[in-house]
Amino acid sequence: MKADKPAIILLSGGLDSATVLAIANEDGFACHALSFRYGQRHQNEVDAAVKVANAIGVATHIVTCIDLNVWGGSALTDDIDVPKGGIQDGIPVTYVPARNTIFLSHALGYAEAIGARDIFIGVNAVDYAGYPDCRGEFIEAFENLANLATKAGTLGDGFKIHAPLLHMTKVDIIRRGLQLGVDYDLTQSCYDPIQNSGQPCGQCDACLLRNAAFAEIETVKYQGS
Amino acid sequence: MKADKPAIILLSGGLDSATVLAIANEDGFACHALSFRYGQRHQNEVDAAVKVANAIGVATHIVTCIDLNVWGGSALTDDIDVPKGGIQDGIPVTYVPARNTIFLSHALGYAEAIGARDIFIGVNAVDYAGYPDCRGEFIEAFENLANLATKAGTLGDGFKIHAPLLHMTKVDIIRRGLQLGVDYDLTQSCYDPIQNSGQPCGQCDACLLRNAAFAEIETVKYQGS
Repeated sequence: MKADKPAIILLSGGLDSATVLAIANEDGFACHALSFRYGQRHQNEVDAAVKVANAIGVATHIVTCIDLNVWGGSALTDDIDVPKGGIQDGIPVTYVPARNTIFLSHALGYAEAIGARDIFIGVNAVDYAGYPDCRGEFIEAFENLANLATKAGTLGDGFKIHAPLLHMTKVDIIRRGLQLGVDYDLTQSCYDPIQNSGQPCGQCDACLLRNAAFAEIETVKYQGS
Repeated sequence: MKADKPAIILLSGGLDSATVLAIANEDGFACHALSFRYGQRHQNEVDAAVKVANAIGVATHIVTCIDLNVWGGSALTDDIDVPKGGIQDGIPVTYVPARNTIFLSHALGYAEAIGARDIFIGVNAVDYAGYPDCRGEFIEAFENLANLATKAGTLGDGFKIHAPLLHMTKVDIIRRGLQLGVDYDLTQSCYDPIQNSGQPCGQCDACLLRNAAFAEIETVKYQGS
């Protein structure tokens, strides 16, 4: 237990980061959640982040604004259709240029300013193999950078980037979250929610991965009963 | 010459980044300047960045907003006095946690989105030895990260972080800029301009370094005449 030791938790409102928040809480950190309005096409995920933070419990929650759609380059920030034909190989058009680098950089500044040395991010290299900034090498390179870039790191009081979901499957992530009491009904994974209702589309990669994982958990539950 | 090859230039409105813009222009890049309103206590530097961009010439100039004073931690973003007792050893309170990491991360996203692979930053390890994110090791670590973090880098079409001022003295920087026609009267270095007039305070570290360099150049000029 690390009671009252502060940590920054990148919280998107999705399934993964909700689980990470629950894990950091369980580990005894005082959790300072950080969410972004970054010019994403829909705001549902920020609303979900607020609900998740309230439900799981945080020391503070900052929602900050950055504008990544001024240059676009992604189906999530630009006028590019979100693919709905099943998961393909390669890096999908939903990749947002440098998004996790930008999020971690802000988290690093926040951490240093408040004296936190631990940053949690819900990247996952199993289901999101296509995203370069969801890999272990990326997390290691960022941690190395963090300790060169900062006053704290330079003085030997280094930062740790925690990516507890890195090697977990979506099914394992959900099971861990359920053990910790995460209410996944509050989370929002869809890349392209239905206008007005805000309901998930059910067809984008994020919906497909999420639904397949919950279906597997349900099947095992029924088979086991 | 790299005519029409796009590059992102981080432009603060200060002396260093104005010189970097002139160098990138001279090298034949199509310069896309990027400036930040980041919650700094005074807005003069963004006004200066606009004037510098117009005077030197750019392909585009984006001024984007991020909010680093929501967590503070620096004399430039928080209610901490700017030191005016002469330059001290160590990392000064004007250090903004992770600022250059945050600026470079945004530049990286912008670069990838528009197909640029060159990013210019005016860091300088001679006069600003106290800032961890103004050192060569930091620039190298960021370049390494950039090529792991992005789709372009992963596909072998890597990024180059240019820091042409890294090992130059302030006098050398100004001399180079004057050769390239930079009008330094448009630039703004002061950490704490006088309210209302916007004139430089003349006593902060940035003013001391700038004024000493111009004084040395003037002395040499008179001695040589």
